[in-house]
Amino acid sequence: MELERIRTTQAASYVGQRVKLAGWLHALRKLGSLNFLIVRDGFGMFQAVLDDVSPLSGCQVESILEVEGTVVAEPQAPGGAELHECAVSVLVPVTEAPPLVINKRELKASLDVFLDHAPVGLRHPTRRALFRIQAGLMTAFRAHLTSQGFTEIQTPKLVGSATESGANVFAVDYFGRKAYLAQSPQFYKQLMVGVFERVFEVGPVFRAEPHATTRHLNEYVSLDVELGFIRDHHDVMAVLSGVIAAMLDHVQQQHAADLALIGATVPQVPKHIPEIDFREAQALIAQHTDRDPRGEPDLAPADEKWLCDYAREQWESDFLFVTGYPTEKRPFYTMPASHDPTVTNGFDLLFRGTELVTGGQRIHLYSQLVEAAKAKGISPEVIAGYLEAFRFGMPPHGGFAIGLERFVMLMVGLGNLREAALFPRDIHRLAP
Amino acid sequence: MELERIRTTQAASYVGQRVKLAGWLHALRKLGSLNFLIVRDGFGMFQAVLDDVSPLSGCQVESILEVEGTVVAEPQAPGGAELHECAVSVLVPVTEAPPLVINKRELKASLDVFLDHAPVGLRHPTRRALFRIQAGLMTAFRAHLTSQGFTEIQTPKLVGSATESGANVFAVDYFGRKAYLAQSPQFYKQLMVGVFERVFEVGPVFRAEPHATTRHLNEYVSLDVELGFIRDHHDVMAVLSGVIAAMLDHVQQQHAADLALIGATVPQVPKHIPEIDFREAQALIAQHTDRDPRGEPDLAPADEKWLCDYAREQWESDFLFVTGYPTEKRPFYTMPASHDPTVTNGFDLLFRGTELVTGGQRIHLYSQLVEAAKAKGISPEVIAGYLEAFRFGMPPHGGFAIGLERFVMLMVGLGNLREAALFPRDIHRLAP
Repeated sequence: MELERIRTTQAASYVGQRVKLAGWLHALRKLGSLNFLIVRDGFGMFQAVLDDVSPLSGCQVESILEVEGTVVAEPQAPGGAELHECAVSVLVPVTEAPPLVINKRELKASLDVFLDHAPVGLRHPTRRALFRIQAGLMTAFRAHLTSQGFTEIQTPKLVGSATESGANVFAVDYFGRKAYLAQSPQFYKQLMVGVFERVFEVGPVFRAEPHATTRHLNEYVSLDVELGFIRDHHDVMAVLSGVIAAMLDHVQQQHAADLALIGATVPQVPKHIPEIDFREAQALIAQHTDRDPRGEPDLAPADEKWLCDYAREQWESDFLFVTGYPTEKRPFYTMPASHDPTVTNGFDLLFRGTELVTGGQRIHLYSQLVEAAKAKGISPEVIAGYLEAFRFGMPPHGGFAIGLERFVMLMVGLGNLREAALFPRDIHRLAP
Repeated sequence: MELERIRTTQAASYVGQRVKLAGWLHALRKLGSLNFLIVRDGFGMFQAVLDDVSPLSGCQVESILEVEGTVVAEPQAPGGAELHECAVSVLVPVTEAPPLVINKRELKASLDVFLDHAPVGLRHPTRRALFRIQAGLMTAFRAHLTSQGFTEIQTPKLVGSATESGANVFAVDYFGRKAYLAQSPQFYKQLMVGVFERVFEVGPVFRAEPHATTRHLNEYVSLDVELGFIRDHHDVMAVLSGVIAAMLDHVQQQHAADLALIGATVPQVPKHIPEIDFREAQALIAQHTDRDPRGEPDLAPADEKWLCDYAREQWESDFLFVTGYPTEKRPFYTMPASHDPTVTNGFDLLFRGTELVTGGQRIHLYSQLVEAAKAKGISPEVIAGYLEAFRFGMPPHGGFAIGLERFVMLMVGLGNLREAALFPRDIHRLAP
């Protein structure tokens, strides 16, 4: 009877038995009478000891192989076991050397070379670990929110008007008229609070920002949340803290080997993430540095960095909430603070030097929202579909959006956001 | 101490206790000294008995309320309990009647009126049930595949070339050059088989089909799967059967109340879904009906319908696999059958009269794939990024895509695919 193929990650538990593996020729070290073949499949790698390498003659790395052999315990081997008495067959020979080296511990290619050859480069064990972690973050995000009564939604990415933020939207030729690519599911997730009260969405968003920085992409995955019947933005911040903790906990529990492979450590989420007021933050920076940001309507990257260092020192936290952002820099639907309408119930969550999440309480009263839109030059007619939900009863609500790639970048310490997307899109790059 | 708000779905378990509910004024029936208020929150509804309705004077349905009261067992009440000795307060008054009636058992609005006012219409209990089921299908899809070793991926929706199928793509102005909206993640999920071996994606796809039928949308959610190290398409069909069964099982277990609300029954997935060869299917139709489809390269809608009726009668199955589709009508990357290159290892899964899933084995050999592309007039240079994965070792693989909205439509018996999308996009509709 033919052997059923098993995964490389299962092989070590078959000591003494004959097994079949299938995968890529990851590496072959020829030492004459003793030869070490590393077979990589979609899950891991396993070592096979070959007496005879002639079946592999002419085969480059990445050839597709089947290897049958007997599993033998061997403390020297990676994972403590290896295959002996092997029979190797080549399913798909590869005859060229790959465009970048993917069987060394470190991936040495420059970022551009890597991205040009991502279909091969992503096979490097560290890249696989990274994107397994990313998948784990999505899984944990959804599982935690579902357990808290949130319903998953899928909202359209093709929209009829571009007024949510106005600038930097991609235009689409839609049967002779113009459509736009959604910059976020903001309006739709708010509408859906009217339906399910608590909703989340995981999906692509599109930003036509015409600049190339290490921390922007033109398409990225947004983890969006919105919830109703809140007291104020602190209820939103509590949900955010809970979901971030659940995501990091999941990665720690389920992806320890992946984390080790890329040398990343997962931060602790404090029971209570510290919070600082926007203007107090500016005052602190003015007091402690040679810059004076007071009066600025937003935090500069240097400010965010300084505040994160401060939070580490003061509260031993990698996370810091900033609240009380000025009304002038937040979107029209942001709820003004009850004590001072020049500031909002909007917040950012800073993480390791950078803004990771933006959120806040939204305006839920129809007439107030109409006035707020007008004040920012947005005509109520253009957003009539959005406003209709508010004419017919919306509870106090708020939400937030986490950029998935940015979370991964900051968590594992990547130098460029492009490394955190499988096939990133920037002003120059649309392929592969 | 102030009461914590509980959900309407929790209230019946608080008999004898004082509770606080919050939600929408779903309905108010005034009978003089006895008045019945139905409060709807994001999860369900609960009845409150009011002596005094004056706090609600001037409030239309959909006003946002808080109601405190004592839970009393009452066999006559929906759910077997209701609130007595109530104190009602209005958080957000609504002063207009909504544009469609959402507090009757059936939603009577025409489809166009419903879609124009979806932000309100989606609050109808039957619509909520439908989209909770849809969310459940996504949850089960991901959970089942994750348990089978699949990794979730997120691939770009903005792509540099439009050659996967050629026609019906939306063009995007991308910083002065042209990009296109992905019609599917086909190429990317195949590339990722080279990385993770087994992958899935849940995300939007875009089809610029310039016609308006009841079973097409211009944007929909595609549930995509691709897996490596298969023998042939039957391994793919086995994974598809397993995931469909898991999805239906989840809905049956977790959404019994939702199904009852919309009067839908979930079909059984047979242990082995019957399979019929394309040409044999055509011969059967020629034999049993007054049409003769033999020689046609694809099945017409009437053929699919007839075959589904046939499968019900012959095998008591709501599902039917059709295999052996002609090469001329399948995409260039489809694996030709080993016994006859004019037919493919591509399949469709028919369900209740319509094609639900398309899938198949793909060509995995580089040179064969290049020739197949050229034969369909596609230049290898244009798909160089895709082809690179094949130059450097791709295993035998295949996959499929399920249209989420179509699955929901066929499962619950909707008359129009637009009803299965929260905010559908068609040739005329880009809002709300």
